[in-house]
Amino acid sequence: MTLSTARLQAILTEITDIARASESRGKVADYIPELACIDPAQFAIALARPGKPTLVAGDASVPFSIQSVSKVFMLALALGKLGDRLWSRVGREPSGQAFDSLFLLEPERGRPRNPFINAGAIVTTDAVLEGSSPREALGSLLRFIRAAANDDDIHMNERVAQSEIATGHRNFALAHYLLSHGNLANTPDLTLGTYFHQCAVEMTPMQLANAGLFLVGGKDAPRLVSAQRIRRINALMMTCGHYDGSGDYAYRVGLPGKSGVGGGILSIVPGIASVAVWSPGLNHYGNSKLGTEAMERFAKMTGWSVFGPTRAAR
Amino acid sequence: MTLSTARLQAILTEITDIARASESRGKVADYIPELACIDPAQFAIALARPGKPTLVAGDASVPFSIQSVSKVFMLALALGKLGDRLWSRVGREPSGQAFDSLFLLEPERGRPRNPFINAGAIVTTDAVLEGSSPREALGSLLRFIRAAANDDDIHMNERVAQSEIATGHRNFALAHYLLSHGNLANTPDLTLGTYFHQCAVEMTPMQLANAGLFLVGGKDAPRLVSAQRIRRINALMMTCGHYDGSGDYAYRVGLPGKSGVGGGILSIVPGIASVAVWSPGLNHYGNSKLGTEAMERFAKMTGWSVFGPTRAAR
Amino acid sequence: MTLSTARLQAILTEITDIARASESRGKVADYIPELACIDPAQFAIALARPGKPTLVAGDASVPFSIQSVSKVFMLALALGKLGDRLWSRVGREPSGQAFDSLFLLEPERGRPRNPFINAGAIVTTDAVLEGSSPREALGSLLRFIRAAANDDDIHMNERVAQSEIATGHRNFALAHYLLSHGNLANTPDLTLGTYFHQCAVEMTPMQLANAGLFLVGGKDAPRLVSAQRIRRINALMMTCGHYDGSGDYAYRVGLPGKSGVGGGILSIVPGIASVAVWSPGLNHYGNSKLGTEAMERFAKMTGWSVFGPTRAAR
Amino acid sequence: MTLSTARLQAILTEITDIARASESRGKVADYIPELACIDPAQFAIALARPGKPTLVAGDASVPFSIQSVSKVFMLALALGKLGDRLWSRVGREPSGQAFDSLFLLEPERGRPRNPFINAGAIVTTDAVLEGSSPREALGSLLRFIRAAANDDDIHMNERVAQSEIATGHRNFALAHYLLSHGNLANTPDLTLGTYFHQCAVEMTPMQLANAGLFLVGGKDAPRLVSAQRIRRINALMMTCGHYDGSGDYAYRVGLPGKSGVGGGILSIVPGIASVAVWSPGLNHYGNSKLGTEAMERFAKMTGWSVFGPTRAAR
Repeated sequence: MTLSTARLQAILTEITDIARASESRGKVADYIPELACIDPAQFAIALARPGKPTLVAGDASVPFSIQSVSKVFMLALALGKLGDRLWSRVGREPSGQAFDSLFLLEPERGRPRNPFINAGAIVTTDAVLEGSSPREALGSLLRFIRAAANDDDIHMNERVAQSEIATGHRNFALAHYLLSHGNLANTPDLTLGTYFHQCAVEMTPMQLANAGLFLVGGKDAPRLVSAQRIRRINALMMTCGHYDGSGDYAYRVGLPGKSGVGGGILSIVPGIASVAVWSPGLNHYGNSKLGTEAMERFAKMTGWSVFGPTRAAR
Repeated sequence: MTLSTARLQAILTEITDIARASESRGKVADYIPELACIDPAQFAIALARPGKPTLVAGDASVPFSIQSVSKVFMLALALGKLGDRLWSRVGREPSGQAFDSLFLLEPERGRPRNPFINAGAIVTTDAVLEGSSPREALGSLLRFIRAAANDDDIHMNERVAQSEIATGHRNFALAHYLLSHGNLANTPDLTLGTYFHQCAVEMTPMQLANAGLFLVGGKDAPRLVSAQRIRRINALMMTCGHYDGSGDYAYRVGLPGKSGVGGGILSIVPGIASVAVWSPGLNHYGNSKLGTEAMERFAKMTGWSVFGPTRAAR
Repeated sequence: MTLSTARLQAILTEITDIARASESRGKVADYIPELACIDPAQFAIALARPGKPTLVAGDASVPFSIQSVSKVFMLALALGKLGDRLWSRVGREPSGQAFDSLFLLEPERGRPRNPFINAGAIVTTDAVLEGSSPREALGSLLRFIRAAANDDDIHMNERVAQSEIATGHRNFALAHYLLSHGNLANTPDLTLGTYFHQCAVEMTPMQLANAGLFLVGGKDAPRLVSAQRIRRINALMMTCGHYDGSGDYAYRVGLPGKSGVGGGILSIVPGIASVAVWSPGLNHYGNSKLGTEAMERFAKMTGWSVFGPTRAAR
Repeated sequence: MTLSTARLQAILTEITDIARASESRGKVADYIPELACIDPAQFAIALARPGKPTLVAGDASVPFSIQSVSKVFMLALALGKLGDRLWSRVGREPSGQAFDSLFLLEPERGRPRNPFINAGAIVTTDAVLEGSSPREALGSLLRFIRAAANDDDIHMNERVAQSEIATGHRNFALAHYLLSHGNLANTPDLTLGTYFHQCAVEMTPMQLANAGLFLVGGKDAPRLVSAQRIRRINALMMTCGHYDGSGDYAYRVGLPGKSGVGGGILSIVPGIASVAVWSPGLNHYGNSKLGTEAMERFAKMTGWSVFGPTRAAR
C-alpha cells in the first residue's frame, strides 16, 4: 500500500500540530553563543521523494544551522575522494559516548570510533583537506549539498562559524589530541576552521529533506554516490548517527538518521523518501527532543521502517 | 526484481564453495571445552522464506550450539512476558565492548547496555524467571523456538550446558556483580543455570533459518510477535547483535543479525527472508569469520540490504 | 624533643574529647548486616610504643571488626610465605578507584593494582592458601596477629564472616573475574570463605595498636618481619592503604595507614609508635570519618610525620 | 649511626660506577626534539645536606633539562600564592595513569588528579598566572629556585621551551580540554607558554640537589616554606611524583621523589638530605631508568627511608 501524497501531507500536519502543542521542548544548545538565542518554539517537518513534490509542515522555510547533520555530506565527500583509505584513520563502530567525548581516544590511540562523533568528523574533514585548501574543500562541500538539494541558495553562516571558533574548546582539545597521535595532517586551526564552517551550513528543513534524496536511491533519485555507498552511509547513520542515543533511535524510529545540535534530524527511508525535521530544543543526548518524538510518530503513522515488512505490503 | 528460487540456490551454493575453499577460517572458541573440539572445516548456509521451501547449502543438517543466537529468542520471550518493563533493567544501546565485558557495568551501576551482551542477556534471563522455575522458563523457550521453526526436533545439549556451568567464570562474575547492584532477582546459580541451558540449544542451520522467520514478518510469516516488536528486535540486532563488531556488520552486510560463539549467525531480510550461516571459526570479535564473510557476499549477490533501495526495485 | 608519656596521654584524651563532641560522624557501613547495628557514637585511640606501656583513650577495650586492616597482616604472611613471587599476581600501585571496584581489572587483565583493594586482597589470600587449607591459613593469620599483639585473646567473629559470605556479592564477582583470568588458584567459595574470615577478626583498639608494633621497627619492637619488609609494607600502606583517599591521607596525616570499613585505622610512626583509632562512621571513601580527622589532629599535635624533619628535632 | 661524609661520598662513587657500567640504560625521550639528542651515557648523583658541603659523583656539573621536576617548585610557588584555594582546581590523589593522560579528565570533569601529572601542572601554572604576566610568574619561579639552590646561575633554555611549544600537542589538548571545563583562566597559548618555559629550566645535578634543600627542613635548611607545607609537598611527591610508577618508587626507594623526562629525579630524605640523580634514558613509566635504580641502591646503602626506623638508630 503506497501512501498517497494527501495522506502523507495529513501526517506531516498532524505531527506538526502535536509538536507545537508540546509543553516539554528540551533545551536549546547554549554552548555555541550564536545558537543560544534561537526561538525554541519553532518546529518543521519536510518530506522529499524522488521525482515527486516535497511536502512540508510548520516552519519549513526558516533556515537553521544544520551543524552535525553536515557530517553526512562531508563523509560522502571524503569517501568520494579517499574511498576506503578513510577507514585507516577512523572506525565504523558506535562509540557509546557523548558527541564530544575524548574518553575512548586514549585507549584507542587517537583513532575515533566513527565519522559522526566530533573526533571522527574532525578526522574526516582533515582527510578531505588532503591536497585542498579549506576554501576549496568548503566549496566542494557546498557544491555537493546544493547539487543534492538541487538548490543553489544554501550558504554558511560566518557568524556561527566564528562563534564556534571562539568557543569550541573541546573540539580544539580533540584536534590537538588527534595531532599528538599523528591522526591530523593539518594544523588544528586549519582543520577546525574548515570543520566549524562545515557545521555552520544553514538550510531550511525543506532544503535539508531535498538534500537527503541522494541517500534514498532508486531510479528517480539524484545519483551522487553509488548504490553500495548509499547503503554504507545509511548503515553508519543507523548505528552511529545519534551518538550514545543511536540504539534508542533505531529502536524507536527504525530509520537511518543523523542529528545536529542545531535541532535538525535527517532520516532516510531507503528507496522511498528523505525526511527532515527541525526543532531547536535538545534532549540529554544532544539530539532534538521534539524532532525525535516527531520521527517516532512519523515512523508509526507511515509504517515505514527498515526493520519491518511494511514496505513489502505497500 | 524478485530473485528466483533457482538463482537463490545458486547463490547459496557459490557462497558455500568459496567458504569451503577458504584457508583462513578463524579460531574455534576454546573457552567452552565442549565446543573446542568442533571441526572448523564445516560450513553451511540456509535461507528460509515465508510460505516457500527453505534452501540450504553445505553442512546444513548438522546440529550446532547456537549459543548467543538464543538471546534473540529469549528477548522475544522476555518482551512478551514483561513488555517495556524489561527496559528498566537493561538498555538498548551498543556497548562498544566485548561480549563478556564488565567494564561499563561499574560506571553504569549494574545496568547492562543491551540484551545481547552477556550481562544484558543474564538480566533478560533473570527477568523471564519472574514467577517461573528454570524448567518452566526453558520449556517456554524451547516451545517458542520449536513453534518458530515449526520443528519439534530441537533440544538443549546438557553436556554443553554443564561444560559452561563448570567454566563460565566470567558469567558468574557478571551475575554476582549484577546482584550486588540489585539487578538480579534470583541467585547467580539459578539464573546462570538457566542462561547456560538457553545457550546450549542445538539447531541445524536449516532449523535456525526457519526459526528466524518470525522476525521476517509479512502475511505468510509465523505470527509469534507483533509487527512493532519485530521491528524493535531487528533494530536491536542491527545495533547490538555483533557486540563491538556491530557497526562493521551493519556496514558490510546491512542486515540485522545475531551471532553466537558456536559460529552461527542469524540474519533477517525484513519482509523477505531469514538467513542462517554457520562456520565454527571465529574472528577477533568472537563472531564467525567465514559466516560474516559469507553474509557480506550474500548481501552483495542478492542486493538485499535494509539500507538500500534494492527492494523497491524488485 | 621526645614527647613524654604524660604529654602523649594528654593528646589522646584531647583528641577523644573532640571526637566525642563531633556532630558529624559519618555513616556506619550497612552493606554487611552484622556491622550495620554498631553504635556510631563510639570512639577510641590507642598508642603503642616498643618497650613502653600502651596508652589509650575512649572505648579502647571494645572489640570491633578490623575488616580490611587485616589485609596488612595477611600481606605480611603472604610475603613471608611467597616473597616476591606474590608480585606476579598483584601490583604495587594505587588504584585510584573504590575499595571494591572491578573497573580496572578488565583493561589490566585480572591483575589487581595492589594488595589493599578487595581484588588484590583476595589474590593475596588465595596465594596464602597455596599448600594450606583455609583452617591452616586462618590459624597462621591468627597466630601472627596474636604474636604481633602479644595477646592471645584475639578471635574471628563467625557471625560477621557468615554475614559477609551471604551478602558479599561484589567480592564474589571479583573472585570469579579473577578466576576467569587464571589469577585464582582455588574456588571462589574457598578463597572468599578464608577472605571473609580474615576480615572478621575482632580486636580492641588497644590490641590493634599493639599488633601494629611489628611495623614500627627498632631494637625494642617485635621482630616478625625484616627491616626491609617493614619499609615495604609501610610504603604500600602509604600509597594504597586508604583506596582512592590514600593521597589525601598522606597529605593530611603523613603516616602510613590502613583503614577498614569497621571504622578502624592502623597508622605507623616508623621507629616510634603504632597508633590505632576507631570510630564506626565512614566518610565517602569508606574510611572512618572521625578516625581520619583524629589522625590528622594526632599528627599535628605530635608533629610526627614521615615527611618532615620533626623527628630530627626531637 | 650518622653516616660520615666520607662514607656518603663512597656510596655516591660506587653508585656512579655501577650505573656507568650498566648496559641497559633506557630510552631518551624523543618526543621533545631538543632532548632527543642528549647523550644517554651520562650519569650523575648529588647529595646536599643542610649546613654541610654538597657531595657529587659523575657528570654532576652538566646542566640538563629538569622538565617535570620543576613542578615541585611551581607547586611550592602556587601554594605560597593561593594556599588551599589551589585544591579547588586540582586533586591530591595518584592518578594511576601516564604523565600526559587525559583519560580521567572526562569522567572527573576537568579536575586533574594531582599537580604532578601534566594536566595538574598546567592548572597549577595557570593558577600562578593569576594577576601575573608569564614573565613575572617565570621570574618568580626562577627567583624561588635560585634562592632554594643558593645559586644565581640557573636559567631556562629557550630552545627547549620553543621545541615543546612546537611539538607539545598533547599538552595543548589538555589545556583546551581544561578550558572547556572552565578550569583554565588564561588562553592555552599563554598558560602553556609559561608551562613549557618552566619545564625548560636547566640545572646541574649539583644545583638540583641544593635546590631541594628547602624540602629537607630542620634548623639549618633554607626556610622558603613552612614545616607543614614541606610535609605536604613531600607527601604529594611520595604518592604522585612518579605518575603510575609512584607506588613502585615508594616500595623500592621509600623516599619522596619527583622525576622529569629529562632524566632527572629529585628525592628528599626529610630532616637529612636532598638527593638529585640524573641519567637521560627512561623506563616505560617515563622516569629515569638508571636514576631509579641508583636511588634504590642509594636507599639500601644508606638505610635511609621514611618507612623504616633506621633514622632512629642513627
